[in-house]
Amino acid sequence: MDKNDFFKQLEFIIEIDKVKQVFRRTKLFDQSRFENDAEHSWHLAIMAILLSKYSNSKIDLLKVIKMVLIHDLVEIDAGDVIVYDTDNRREAKKKEKLSADRIFGLLPEEQGSELKSIWEEFETRESAEAKFAAAIDRFEPILQNKLSEYETWKKHEIKLPQLYEKNQHIKDGSVEIWEYVESLFLDAHNKGYV
Amino acid sequence: MDKNDFFKQLEFIIEIDKVKQVFRRTKLFDQSRFENDAEHSWHLAIMAILLSKYSNSKIDLLKVIKMVLIHDLVEIDAGDVIVYDTDNRREAKKKEKLSADRIFGLLPEEQGSELKSIWEEFETRESAEAKFAAAIDRFEPILQNKLSEYETWKKHEIKLPQLYEKNQHIKDGSVEIWEYVESLFLDAHNKGYV
Repeated sequence: MDKNDFFKQLEFIIEIDKVKQVFRRTKLFDQSRFENDAEHSWHLAIMAILLSKYSNSKIDLLKVIKMVLIHDLVEIDAGDVIVYDTDNRREAKKKEKLSADRIFGLLPEEQGSELKSIWEEFETRESAEAKFAAAIDRFEPILQNKLSEYETWKKHEIKLPQLYEKNQHIKDGSVEIWEYVESLFLDAHNKGYV
Repeated sequence: MDKNDFFKQLEFIIEIDKVKQVFRRTKLFDQSRFENDAEHSWHLAIMAILLSKYSNSKIDLLKVIKMVLIHDLVEIDAGDVIVYDTDNRREAKKKEKLSADRIFGLLPEEQGSELKSIWEEFETRESAEAKFAAAIDRFEPILQNKLSEYETWKKHEIKLPQLYEKNQHIKDGSVEIWEYVESLFLDAHNKGYV
């Protein structure tokens, strides 16, 4: 064991604990409280394992899992911004890049570079793995919303075209999951919520 | 897509959300509140990715990650019992088995069987993957304890031999991590805490 590397890894392990205190705009399935990024990431990893066969393309599941486990670490510095808030999302993107440099920079070089590049791959959303990870990342809050009778969409007065615009990339990862998601949009629309 | 399978998967995904409300006896690294099982499992998965090279034996990392992500789902029905509470641990083991039948039984059969058998493998602690997962599972709270100047051990009046008895299996997963953990035990002992 290279003690120096080990202590860097411990520093990273301790630092990322902070993501347990970054709260999202979406709630637990029973609506009792808001969800934090660590819980969300855990849920996505299990969803990726369960739903990987619905991916449009063959994917490296291990890479998808790494992606979803680390995708929100940058919010330790940059915070969480709702996807429908376009202006603040742009500002947040800059902060997230600096945050990625800092946080992945805590690790031994090889490991830090690997995880940072997986994070960038997720953000760029070009590879099959990133497309599927992004699909799952959008699917979880949509499912939470459905169970609350679409509370977040009502509260933020989201319109149907916004739902399509911000979520249609689910189709790039999984046409099958997208078809289900679209049925929920239409359900919410038919009920007059969006 | 087999809709029937998909709806079973959604039911499982919704059910396991409850693990976000099963709280452990250990706290976040900044001591601000107790940690829940979902956050803990997320942390373990990242630790497994980072620390896998310290495993004594070659391991299938994807399997280790699946193990740590699902290892606490049974606590949805059985609750969390501190490892040093031997009597209640025995009772909890029975409940956990029933819980595993129920929760993994929600999934399509093949997927449910796979995850249940991974959970059983974790519990039996015989495979290289299970030994390493168990090592990481013990290492996280020990690290949390260190950062709180060993608060949980002081509070529960844990003795040095108990620390060895309940944690020495870390050595079966990783001699290198064990050596670091042992140095923390001796640190706590030298300070008169255990």
